[in-house]
Amino acid sequence: MRNRSAPFLAACRREPVPHTPVWFMRQAGRALPEYRAIRGTGSILEAIADPERATEITLQPVRRYGVDAAILFSDIVVPVWATGFGVEIVAGRGPVVEDPIRTPADLGRLRPLDPEGDTGFVLETIRRVAGELAGDVALIGFAGAPFTVASYLVEGGPSRDFARVKTLMHSDPATWHGLVDRLAQMAIDSLVAQVAAGVDAVQLFDSWAGSLSPADYERFALPATTRVLDAVRSLGVPTILFGVGTGELLGLMSSAGPDVMGIDWRVPLDVARDRVGPGRAVQGNLDPAACLAPFEVVAEETRAVLARAGSAPGHVFNLGHGVLPETDPGILGAVVDLVHAEGRAGVAR
Amino acid sequence: MRNRSAPFLAACRREPVPHTPVWFMRQAGRALPEYRAIRGTGSILEAIADPERATEITLQPVRRYGVDAAILFSDIVVPVWATGFGVEIVAGRGPVVEDPIRTPADLGRLRPLDPEGDTGFVLETIRRVAGELAGDVALIGFAGAPFTVASYLVEGGPSRDFARVKTLMHSDPATWHGLVDRLAQMAIDSLVAQVAAGVDAVQLFDSWAGSLSPADYERFALPATTRVLDAVRSLGVPTILFGVGTGELLGLMSSAGPDVMGIDWRVPLDVARDRVGPGRAVQGNLDPAACLAPFEVVAEETRAVLARAGSAPGHVFNLGHGVLPETDPGILGAVVDLVHAEGRAGVAR
Repeated sequence: MRNRSAPFLAACRREPVPHTPVWFMRQAGRALPEYRAIRGTGSILEAIADPERATEITLQPVRRYGVDAAILFSDIVVPVWATGFGVEIVAGRGPVVEDPIRTPADLGRLRPLDPEGDTGFVLETIRRVAGELAGDVALIGFAGAPFTVASYLVEGGPSRDFARVKTLMHSDPATWHGLVDRLAQMAIDSLVAQVAAGVDAVQLFDSWAGSLSPADYERFALPATTRVLDAVRSLGVPTILFGVGTGELLGLMSSAGPDVMGIDWRVPLDVARDRVGPGRAVQGNLDPAACLAPFEVVAEETRAVLARAGSAPGHVFNLGHGVLPETDPGILGAVVDLVHAEGRAGVAR
Repeated sequence: MRNRSAPFLAACRREPVPHTPVWFMRQAGRALPEYRAIRGTGSILEAIADPERATEITLQPVRRYGVDAAILFSDIVVPVWATGFGVEIVAGRGPVVEDPIRTPADLGRLRPLDPEGDTGFVLETIRRVAGELAGDVALIGFAGAPFTVASYLVEGGPSRDFARVKTLMHSDPATWHGLVDRLAQMAIDSLVAQVAAGVDAVQLFDSWAGSLSPADYERFALPATTRVLDAVRSLGVPTILFGVGTGELLGLMSSAGPDVMGIDWRVPLDVARDRVGPGRAVQGNLDPAACLAPFEVVAEETRAVLARAGSAPGHVFNLGHGVLPETDPGILGAVVDLVHAEGRAGVAR
């Protein structure tokens, strides 16, 4: 376990910090030449299942950027994949499911997760990373929120309009709730084991929740997400809930009880703080595509995010979504330095 | 020109209506068997360039659904295509540009639009449709907003993260503004000619504006959109401005001066009315994917939209984005009947 006072963990708890902490979603990945050098040519799931490679990939961005947190190199479909549900991650496309879930009978193909037996490699990676990190750098574990994992299992792959998943929830709510209940239990079992193995905080990725209307989110996604966060709360580590395009959902998502709400780049952080309400930290929210500009532009945008975050405690700097593969790592390193030097949220003076 | 008191036109002006008017974005298209029967196998641009087919396709949904407005069967890339800029519409993918715009020199490849010479087929379709429509059914013309058209020209096709277009605007604002200025002029020239040929209202599609942060929208997209709406205002027809995922932009978009703000399904209409402010009607916003459910579910969702629209004048019922190809036309017809029977916004009693 890290120092409880590590800047990232303190910011999650809205406590004073020595500097505004920063990490980047997808910081471990294709933007880094040292990642491309050891990633290998097979499926990304093979690299995830190899604790030696996964440990190195998890640590690379900490060395390169000087971020305040490492995030486990893994994927939100790993638990379903590891229990034998047929899913592959196709480069440039995302998770693809050969035989999607469409009927009540399909639920039988999802079996419960045995974290050590099915995903022992994940836990081994966590133990190795935790043993290597300095005490003021936190390790973040994660899981997919039930709606977002379900969207892949029902659509069969990434989707633009989420037509099949919405059709299932609207036309057969019992099967839908059976599906997200199973995925919630799988996320809980995975996160409990991740915390026991040594992660200091967990992020729940509900990446595609923003495709839902508020009414649909409240009825079909929020209950299972709340169940996951309720189960994780007793473990004593901070929780982060994130999705893109969730501006209209922030109040509902906040009601699920995370310590930190992840905010995409569309919602200015001061507006987000109002919608999220008191008692939550916020994480975000530089536009990943803005990081492709010359550094003077990136610096201006970074300062704009810091200004919106204000000086009240409880800001973790991040991008509003994952690092784009074509990002210059030098730019991200300079963003870390700038945030550490100029961030003011909760900085003790 | 239609009757000025046609329900759709009256609702756009926030005047009393005999019933809440309704039409559907992409109502002319793949969901209709009669469309598939005459569409042909070539490029969709060929069908658009054939006034006989385009007229029939434009009229089909009026007959089938009993909607209050027809929308010209065309595409937002038609003006650039018709002036000889290389763009094709690939089935299942969207507009694809062989040689994208990346440098100041590329701007020279965009030449001004001669509406009659380049897009005479569009104007001929408008004249034919206007001659066939009953006086209480309006004809909507349209153009792409400069940002959204530019996104295709710069990205080279549909995009998930809009990385290239954002890179251009941030790193070379002069070229960016040169590009959107040209596209604004093209939209103005097209819309002026469309109104002269007989359309009763125009919609400006800024479909992907929601990918921008509010600060980027205000700086890089809003000025050119405002210029288009300013130029169209003097023509005396109602204007509609629409994009998806624009919850955080509604106030800014409204400041561009449309008569009607199109709202996607993510923002409840009462919330949208607050953000849009007084002096604007709203259009929307049933989730297109909800239309794939059994009709009792669709009816419930339709009534929820009507309830959020309230009874103040100025609501045009629509989907929150385009009709999905797999939609049952019978469902959409039943939605029209339900909206006509139960809509209350501005209904004179």
